[in-house]
Amino acid sequence: MKLLIVNPNISSGVTDLIEAEARRVASSGVQIEMATAASGVAYIETRFEALLGAHAVAAIAGERKGQYDALLIAAFGDPGLHELREVLDVPVVGMTEAALMTAAQLGQRIGIIAISRRITAWYRECVDRYGMLSRLAGIRHLDRPLRDPATVREDHGDYLVELSRRAVEEDGADVLILAGAPLAGLARSVADLLPVPVVDGVSSGVCQAQVLTRLATMRAPSGSFAKPPLKLNVGLSKSLSELLARE
Amino acid sequence: MKLLIVNPNISSGVTDLIEAEARRVASSGVQIEMATAASGVAYIETRFEALLGAHAVAAIAGERKGQYDALLIAAFGDPGLHELREVLDVPVVGMTEAALMTAAQLGQRIGIIAISRRITAWYRECVDRYGMLSRLAGIRHLDRPLRDPATVREDHGDYLVELSRRAVEEDGADVLILAGAPLAGLARSVADLLPVPVVDGVSSGVCQAQVLTRLATMRAPSGSFAKPPLKLNVGLSKSLSELLARE
Amino acid sequence: MKLLIVNPNISSGVTDLIEAEARRVASSGVQIEMATAASGVAYIETRFEALLGAHAVAAIAGERKGQYDALLIAAFGDPGLHELREVLDVPVVGMTEAALMTAAQLGQRIGIIAISRRITAWYRECVDRYGMLSRLAGIRHLDRPLRDPATVREDHGDYLVELSRRAVEEDGADVLILAGAPLAGLARSVADLLPVPVVDGVSSGVCQAQVLTRLATMRAPSGSFAKPPLKLNVGLSKSLSELLARE
Amino acid sequence: MKLLIVNPNISSGVTDLIEAEARRVASSGVQIEMATAASGVAYIETRFEALLGAHAVAAIAGERKGQYDALLIAAFGDPGLHELREVLDVPVVGMTEAALMTAAQLGQRIGIIAISRRITAWYRECVDRYGMLSRLAGIRHLDRPLRDPATVREDHGDYLVELSRRAVEEDGADVLILAGAPLAGLARSVADLLPVPVVDGVSSGVCQAQVLTRLATMRAPSGSFAKPPLKLNVGLSKSLSELLARE
Amino acid sequence: MKLLIVNPNISSGVTDLIEAEARRVASSGVQIEMATAASGVAYIETRFEALLGAHAVAAIAGERKGQYDALLIAAFGDPGLHELREVLDVPVVGMTEAALMTAAQLGQRIGIIAISRRITAWYRECVDRYGMLSRLAGIRHLDRPLRDPATVREDHGDYLVELSRRAVEEDGADVLILAGAPLAGLARSVADLLPVPVVDGVSSGVCQAQVLTRLATMRAPSGSFAKPPLKLNVGLSKSLSELLARE
Amino acid sequence: MKLLIVNPNISSGVTDLIEAEARRVASSGVQIEMATAASGVAYIETRFEALLGAHAVAAIAGERKGQYDALLIAAFGDPGLHELREVLDVPVVGMTEAALMTAAQLGQRIGIIAISRRITAWYRECVDRYGMLSRLAGIRHLDRPLRDPATVREDHGDYLVELSRRAVEEDGADVLILAGAPLAGLARSVADLLPVPVVDGVSSGVCQAQVLTRLATMRAPSGSFAKPPLKLNVGLSKSLSELLARE
Repeated sequence: MKLLIVNPNISSGVTDLIEAEARRVASSGVQIEMATAASGVAYIETRFEALLGAHAVAAIAGERKGQYDALLIAAFGDPGLHELREVLDVPVVGMTEAALMTAAQLGQRIGIIAISRRITAWYRECVDRYGMLSRLAGIRHLDRPLRDPATVREDHGDYLVELSRRAVEEDGADVLILAGAPLAGLARSVADLLPVPVVDGVSSGVCQAQVLTRLATMRAPSGSFAKPPLKLNVGLSKSLSELLARE
Repeated sequence: MKLLIVNPNISSGVTDLIEAEARRVASSGVQIEMATAASGVAYIETRFEALLGAHAVAAIAGERKGQYDALLIAAFGDPGLHELREVLDVPVVGMTEAALMTAAQLGQRIGIIAISRRITAWYRECVDRYGMLSRLAGIRHLDRPLRDPATVREDHGDYLVELSRRAVEEDGADVLILAGAPLAGLARSVADLLPVPVVDGVSSGVCQAQVLTRLATMRAPSGSFAKPPLKLNVGLSKSLSELLARE
Repeated sequence: MKLLIVNPNISSGVTDLIEAEARRVASSGVQIEMATAASGVAYIETRFEALLGAHAVAAIAGERKGQYDALLIAAFGDPGLHELREVLDVPVVGMTEAALMTAAQLGQRIGIIAISRRITAWYRECVDRYGMLSRLAGIRHLDRPLRDPATVREDHGDYLVELSRRAVEEDGADVLILAGAPLAGLARSVADLLPVPVVDGVSSGVCQAQVLTRLATMRAPSGSFAKPPLKLNVGLSKSLSELLARE
Repeated sequence: MKLLIVNPNISSGVTDLIEAEARRVASSGVQIEMATAASGVAYIETRFEALLGAHAVAAIAGERKGQYDALLIAAFGDPGLHELREVLDVPVVGMTEAALMTAAQLGQRIGIIAISRRITAWYRECVDRYGMLSRLAGIRHLDRPLRDPATVREDHGDYLVELSRRAVEEDGADVLILAGAPLAGLARSVADLLPVPVVDGVSSGVCQAQVLTRLATMRAPSGSFAKPPLKLNVGLSKSLSELLARE
Repeated sequence: MKLLIVNPNISSGVTDLIEAEARRVASSGVQIEMATAASGVAYIETRFEALLGAHAVAAIAGERKGQYDALLIAAFGDPGLHELREVLDVPVVGMTEAALMTAAQLGQRIGIIAISRRITAWYRECVDRYGMLSRLAGIRHLDRPLRDPATVREDHGDYLVELSRRAVEEDGADVLILAGAPLAGLARSVADLLPVPVVDGVSSGVCQAQVLTRLATMRAPSGSFAKPPLKLNVGLSKSLSELLARE
Repeated sequence: MKLLIVNPNISSGVTDLIEAEARRVASSGVQIEMATAASGVAYIETRFEALLGAHAVAAIAGERKGQYDALLIAAFGDPGLHELREVLDVPVVGMTEAALMTAAQLGQRIGIIAISRRITAWYRECVDRYGMLSRLAGIRHLDRPLRDPATVREDHGDYLVELSRRAVEEDGADVLILAGAPLAGLARSVADLLPVPVVDGVSSGVCQAQVLTRLATMRAPSGSFAKPPLKLNVGLSKSLSELLARE
C-alpha cells in the first residue's frame, strides 16, 4: 500500500517531523511518500490560510494521481479533506478527523491541546463540521511559539502536562488530542506523565488510512461524495483539471 | 459605495443575470462592479467545485483590493466567504448567508428550492455552518437542468409553484429561498403565485451588503476574523499574497 | 416608506434615544414615526414584563393599522415579534433579531453586552428561539444601573471596553451586540476602542426594516405566519380585535 | 389544596370538559376552581392568539391572587406559563409541559396528536422551548374540526387510532399525548385501542400540580424566575399591577 | 397502590434513609415496600457500577413480579430504568428522571448538586439520555465523602448553600436538584437557606410514581418499550427469565 | 496481539460467522480468541436484552482478565462498552462504534441497514450516545427474519440493494453500515452492487482494535474512565469482582 502524506504547509522541516512519526507507526507493508505544499504559508492557523493549503494539497493530489492508494492530509483542520474525497478514487484521511474518531473510542469527552490561541476558533469549527462538538470537552492552547521541534519536550513539556491536567479536571476530558503536526513526537514522549490517554494526528492518520484501505470497497457512483457532474471548466492547472476528469 | 459582485462560476451569462437583478434592487448610491471567475467550473454544485470557486474569488478580491467598499460572493454556498472575511478590510457578503438571515426575519422555518439534486448536500452543510439547521424546514430541488435563463418562467414556473407548495405543506416552511443565481429573476416573477414570502440570494446579498456598509464600524484587530498572523508565504500569485500583506 | 418604531417600555426618554439613533441611520426615503407603550413597565427585563410589553405593542400596531409600511419593535427580546408577524400585512422587525442576523454576517460567534444581570436569562431564551444559540459566544452585562443616557459614555465607557475585551478573549466572540436601546448611541461612540466589530439593535433594526420592505413580496396566505383562522373573539380592545379582522 | 384551573380560551363549554376531567383525576384533598378567559378567542391555535390568552390568564391570576395554592393553565402551548412563574408565589403548571414531562417517563420518544393543522407549528415551538425537541417523534393532527365534544369518540375515534398507529410505526413514538383540552375525555375512552400508552394534558396537569404543591419549597428569591425588580409601571389593570407588587 | 422502591446499592443504611423520606412524602393510599440490591457496590458512581446495579434491580423486579403496582429505582443515574420499562407491566420510575421532570416545571435551567466529583460525568450522560442537556445549567459536587447521614446538615449544610449560590449566580440555575439518595433529608432541612426551589430524587420519584399509576393506561403492545420478541434464552436466573416470559 | 472477540448473544452459529469475517480482515500478527455469552438471548434487539448481554460480556472479560490485549464486543449497540472501558487496562472496542467512526471517514452522512424493525430504536439511541446523531442519515431495516446465514445473499441481496438505494436517494446517505453481525459476509459480497461505500461492524471492529492497540498509551489514572473508586462490594461472581479489583 502506497500512502501519500501531504503537508499543506510549506515548511519542509515539519514534513520531516511528520515523516518520522509516520514511519514509526506504519505497518511494514505501508510505503510512505511525502509531499510538501508548493505554495501557501509556514503554518496554517486560519480559514484563509486553510484555503491556500487546500488548494496546494489538491494540486499535489492531481499531479500524482494514480500513484498512491491513500492520501493523508497532515495539517490542522484537514484542509481539502471533504473536497478531495469527491474527486479521488482512494481513501482520503485528515489527521484531525482521524484523531477525533480514534480518540472517540478511548473516552467520551475529548480535550484538544492546540499550538496557538489563534488556531482554536478554526479548530472548533472543524470539530463541529465532523458533528463531534458534543464530544468536545474543550480546546486549550500553548501560549508561546514553538522554538524548535527538537527541544519541544524541554520547552513545553511541563506546560503541556499542566494544560492536560486542566483539560481533565476543569473541562472533564477523558482523552486528549495533541493537535499539531509539530507536536507529533511530543505526545509519545510525555504520555506517561499525562492523566488520560493521548493521541496525536499523524499516528492516528496513518493508522486510519490503513483501516480505510483495508476495508473500503470499490469507489461507488452515488451520494454526495460521488464525482462532480461533468461540465465545462477553464483556467485550471493541469493537476487540478485532472481531478475533474473521468477516466 | 462601490459594491464588487463576484460570480465564482466561469459563466458570464449568469454574471449578466446577477447584474440585472443587482441593479434592479440596489439603492441609487450604490455603484456596482461585476467580476467573473477566471478559473473554475460552469456551475458549482459540490465541495470540490466550491474550493475552485473560493480560490477564484480570492484572486479577484486581491487583484482589485482597495477598489471596493463591499464584496458580494454570488454563488451557492458562498465559496470563500469566511476565508475572505479574515483578510479584507470591507464587509464580505455571501448570497446564501444573506438570504438566510433575511428569510429568518420573515418566518420561523425556512424552505430552500435548489437547482439540482446534487447541490442539496453541499447546501445543507452551508446552512449548518451558519448555525441555521434548526431553522431549515427542508431543501427541495428542480429535477431538470435549466435550459435557458430567458425562458425559466415558462420552463419551470409550474414546477416551482408545486415545490413551494410542498415545502409549505409537507415540510412546514414559513418562507422560501430560491437558491440559485440563475433563479434570481424567477423569484420576483412568480412571487404572487407562491403560498409564502420568497427571497432570492442576489437581492438579499445586495441589500445586506448595503446594511453592513452602513453599519459596520472600522475593521477591528481581534477575534477569529482578524488578519492572519504575519508569517512566511511562498508560491502565491501576486493577488493572493496581497491579501496576506499588512498595509 | 413609513416606519413605525414602537418602544414597548413606557419610558419616553428612551423613545427619544431610539428616535435619534434611528434618524441618524435611516435612508433619506424613510419616514419615521415613534410610539411609546401606553402601559407596562419602565424597562423590560423579564418574561412577564415582556408579556406586558407585547400587549402594549399590539395595541399600538392595531390602533395605527394601515398607517405604516413596516413596524420595528424596539426593546430587548422583541416582545410581540412573532405574534405580530401573524396579523400584520407589513414586515415586522425586532431589534434583537435584526442585530443577531446582522452580526452573524460580521463574525461567526456573537457576544452580547446586556444592561443588567437579570435580563440575561430572558435574552438567552430569545437567542435560542431564533435558533442562534450555537452562534452565541456568551452574554456579559453591566453591573450598575444606567444613571443617565446623556452621560453613558463617561459612566460606562471603560467598563464596556473591558466587558468587550473579555467577550473576545474569554468567550471567543468575533462580533458584539450592545443589546439595550439606551446603549444605542454608545455603540458608535466607543466603537474605535473595541477589539471587534459592534452592532446595536436600533440601527440594525432600522436597516433590516428597509431591507425587508425593499425585498418582501406581497403577504402570502399560507405557512404558520398566515393570518389566524377567523373565529369568535370577545372582550378585546378595538385595536386588538382590528388585528384579527380580515379586510 | 386549592387548584385554580384557567381556560385561556373564551369557550365555557371547553371549560366544562376540562373541569369534568380534572375532577375525575384529582385526589380527594384537591379543591378545584375553574375560570374562563374574559377576553380572547374561541380556540387558540397561533402565537398571536396565545398572546391574547396569556394576557387573559394573567388577569385572572392577579384578580384571584392569594385564593389558590396552584394554578393550571389549561390550553395548548401553555400561554403565560413562564411569565406567571415569575410573579406568583405558588406553582404554575401548563398542561402541555405537564403532559410532556409525564409522557417522558413512559417512553423515550413522544408523539403528539393535535386538533388542527394550523396549531402544529406553534406546538412544535412549545416543545422546543421546553428543550424536548429531541424527544419529539412527531406531531400529527386531526383534519376535521371538532363538531361536538359529546360525540368526539364517534366522530374521531377511528381516525385517532389511525393517527396513533402511524405515530408509532412511521414516526417511532413510544408514548402519545392527545394535545387538546377538548380531547380530554377521548384519551381515556380509546386508550384500549391504542398501540402505546397515552396521556392527556388536563389529567397530567392536575397530577403535576399536586406533585409540585406537595414538593415545592417556599418561594425562593433568586434565579430568573424571581420576582421582577421593582420599577415604575403605568396603565395596567388592577389585577395585572397586583402581580408586580411586593407584599 | 403498592410501590416497590429498590436501592440499587448494597447499603441498607441508605435504604433506610430512602424509606424515611418516601414514607414522609407518599400519599396515604400508597403502600411502600423496600428492597436493597443483593449484589453490587456500596455506592454507584460509575457506568460499570451502574451495570451491576441495573442487574441487581432487575433480579429483584423479576423475583417480586406481580407484587407491586409501580417500581421506583432509587439511585443516581437510574440504573436499569429503560431496560425494565420494556419488561414490566407497571410504571417504572427513576429518581433522577423524576427529579428532572419535576424540576423542569419549577424553572427553566436546572442545577444539580452531586455527592462526589467522580459521579458527575456519569450523571451528565444521564441528563443527556433524557434529552435534557439543554436544560442543564451545570453540575456541582461536594468535595468530601459523607461521614454520616445523621450529621449531614452539620457536616455539609454550609457548603451546600455555597454550592447552590454558585449554581444560581455563576451557572444560571433557576431550580436545583440534590442528586443523591443520602441527601434526601438534607434538601428539605436546608431549603429555606437556598436561593431557588430545590427538589430531591426520592420525593420526586415517589410523587411521579403516583402520577404514572394514576394516569397510565393499560400496558400497550407496540413501540420500542413493548415486550422484547419471544426468543431462546439460556443461563438466566429464574427471576431474570421471568421478566422475559409472556403471561 | 491477542484480540478477544465476545459475542454478547448466546448463538454460537453467529460467533462462527463473526470469527470467519474477523480472521479474514485481521493482520497477520493478530491472534483471535472467540467467546460466546454464557447467558442471555439468541439475538439482542432491545435495551433489556442488551443489559443481559452486557452482563455476560463482563463475566467473560473478568474471567479471562490478563489473557488479551484488546476486547471487541461483537453485537448491535455495543452492550457493556462504556462500562468495561472503566475497568479494563486494554482497549475495548464496540462494533457499532467502530463502524460509525470508520464510516465517518468515508462520507458525511451515514445510513444504517439493520436486521429488524424492533432493533432500530435501540440502535438510534446508541448513535446518539456516541454523539453522532447529526451524522445519521437514517436507519432502514430488513423486514424478514434471517433464514440462514449461508443463504443470506440469495435471500436478502436484492432487498439490501433496494434499501441501500433508498438510504442514498431518500435519506441522503453517503456511506452505509450493515449493522448486524449476521450480515458480516453480506457487506463484502454485495458491495459492488451498492451505490456508496459500505462497512460492517465486525471488520471495522477488528481494524479499530488494531489501531487502538497500536496507538494507545498506557492506561491513565484520571478522567471518567479511570477505575472506579475502591469500595465495598458483595454478591458478585468471581469474574465480576475481579474487574473491580486493583492489581
